[in-house]
Amino acid sequence: MSSLPLTIAVDAMGGDHAPRREVEGAVLAAQELGIGITLVGPEELLREELGRISGGHLPIEIVHASEAVTMQESAARAVRSKRDSSIRAATRLVREGRAQGVVSAGNTGAVMATAKIVLGTLPSVSRPALAAIFPPLGGTRALLVDVGANVDCKPEQLLQFGVMGATLSRLLLNVSRPRVGLLSIGAEQIKGNELTREAYRLLEHSPLHFVGNVEGRDLYSGSVDVVVCDGFIGNVALKISEGLAEAVTRMLRQAFLEAAPAESALWHSRVEDLARRMDYSETGGAPLVGVRGVCTICHGSSSVRAIRSAIQLTAEFAAAGINEKMEAELHRLGSSAERKRRAATHTA
Amino acid sequence: MSSLPLTIAVDAMGGDHAPRREVEGAVLAAQELGIGITLVGPEELLREELGRISGGHLPIEIVHASEAVTMQESAARAVRSKRDSSIRAATRLVREGRAQGVVSAGNTGAVMATAKIVLGTLPSVSRPALAAIFPPLGGTRALLVDVGANVDCKPEQLLQFGVMGATLSRLLLNVSRPRVGLLSIGAEQIKGNELTREAYRLLEHSPLHFVGNVEGRDLYSGSVDVVVCDGFIGNVALKISEGLAEAVTRMLRQAFLEAAPAESALWHSRVEDLARRMDYSETGGAPLVGVRGVCTICHGSSSVRAIRSAIQLTAEFAAAGINEKMEAELHRLGSSAERKRRAATHTA
Repeated sequence: MSSLPLTIAVDAMGGDHAPRREVEGAVLAAQELGIGITLVGPEELLREELGRISGGHLPIEIVHASEAVTMQESAARAVRSKRDSSIRAATRLVREGRAQGVVSAGNTGAVMATAKIVLGTLPSVSRPALAAIFPPLGGTRALLVDVGANVDCKPEQLLQFGVMGATLSRLLLNVSRPRVGLLSIGAEQIKGNELTREAYRLLEHSPLHFVGNVEGRDLYSGSVDVVVCDGFIGNVALKISEGLAEAVTRMLRQAFLEAAPAESALWHSRVEDLARRMDYSETGGAPLVGVRGVCTICHGSSSVRAIRSAIQLTAEFAAAGINEKMEAELHRLGSSAERKRRAATHTA
Repeated sequence: MSSLPLTIAVDAMGGDHAPRREVEGAVLAAQELGIGITLVGPEELLREELGRISGGHLPIEIVHASEAVTMQESAARAVRSKRDSSIRAATRLVREGRAQGVVSAGNTGAVMATAKIVLGTLPSVSRPALAAIFPPLGGTRALLVDVGANVDCKPEQLLQFGVMGATLSRLLLNVSRPRVGLLSIGAEQIKGNELTREAYRLLEHSPLHFVGNVEGRDLYSGSVDVVVCDGFIGNVALKISEGLAEAVTRMLRQAFLEAAPAESALWHSRVEDLARRMDYSETGGAPLVGVRGVCTICHGSSSVRAIRSAIQLTAEFAAAGINEKMEAELHRLGSSAERKRRAATHTA
């Protein structure tokens, strides 16, 4: 990939520890992966931060943006009032072709709203979705779509999430024939709510490799590659997983490190290894799929390595031309549905 | 509690390892807690099983039931066709006053449907709900209501779940002023879906100690005692938690026991202690609240100690007269809403 002239725009003012971790993550990505980076934020501040940690000679540029959106701000207000925010300026670079993707650890709502406004939506997509890559606790990595871009979804949207998720799984995680499941409360088709029962019918008759209803536990069982759900449910599912993983990590550290500091050398490495495997921020952020451009949203609390991973993910996403492939699949799906509809009308 | 003449009916044919674990759990409860037990299932089989493990002289009776509902069966069909199932016969004992509560590790849907039909619903309850007691990873035990009895809920139901959950929290977990939260995707009132935005308004104006929207992670943060949600979301949240906890437990055993068998004596106890703290089945089952009687539903895979805990929980529930208190609170809530409605109509 280092042979490609890729540049990723990084919103340097997004995360809880901005701009330090963003700048350090960018330096790592440039050093280790040779990815070109454009850091976006207050020029002087970023130049200073960059000078502090980098030996120079890295493919890192700075683009000035005077404002930053805070985590507490309403997304709608931030998008309306802060025209020169680092999120918006970074996203604009993608629209203008000066970067092939954008990474932000900022206010999720504001990043999503900005991407939709600045980049627009793929022609066949009704609403973009946020995809979370779950840690591979069950051996394989499952994708959950949507984890918060859309609440109160329609069945057709869940079908689109399945198509977009399957494309991601194929091109990003190298799964040749992704198994797509519908998040519900029992395996049988009749189990679920109004939305899932209707979505089941659509998924069943789609070209996807649909494996039926799956339960929350399947995100960790290795039995499914893509799980689709309404963004409200997906967000709850993601947050509950993160909360439990954090609680378990605390318990682990307490039981094995604090309780037995003498033995801690070997235990420390095992505990930290487990903690890393459970850390949702280490997966490299959540791709926002369905917009005309590549956009990855990281946790506000992302570590330097998580920022680096997100930059890598975004570059791979862009290099694979995932959006073009996603649009082609969605278009085919739409045409086929349209043909079926016409045939049905004709017969009737 | 041993001074109370309490009898708990145990569906001996429910769980995945029935009747062995049910019978052993009943023996433990009778021995250790002095609770009277009525085991319900095929008389000969249960007498044999009981003879095998018990020295006799325990307050355990057997009531014959010829049929058993399997886990795979449709709840509706099981309730209609199996009139002499162990679930139904055990629940009937409660209605007839021959037992003060019923415990089943069987088909959740069938247990719920049977309880609703045989026991009926409390006068002020529109629909009963299943309450899960989460492991105290954040220091305190949070209750999640509903975890699967109702999908596609109305806002008024979520308010009732809050009242029932708060009563449970007060009387069963000894929380003097339970903090009630609404499961959503952000702290602000406007965050959420149509259902939660409407439920927020109702909860806010109720006599409950409502702390606003909470996120999935708060089930483990110790910041809330009762979390209310639609049964679809609750079931997904519970299953995802169980799935993650199981995956983590597997990883733990692998990292600390299989990888280092030589050191396993001390590590074994620590790993197993952590595993127990994360084991959802060890909390003693999920109370079905809102029916005229006490009914606790355990995991199909419940251990003997989990069955014993569920019997204890059910006995405490019955001894505390929780249903009467719940009905009184719900009735007061209903009257107050009715008064407000009348006042509003009168003013208009």
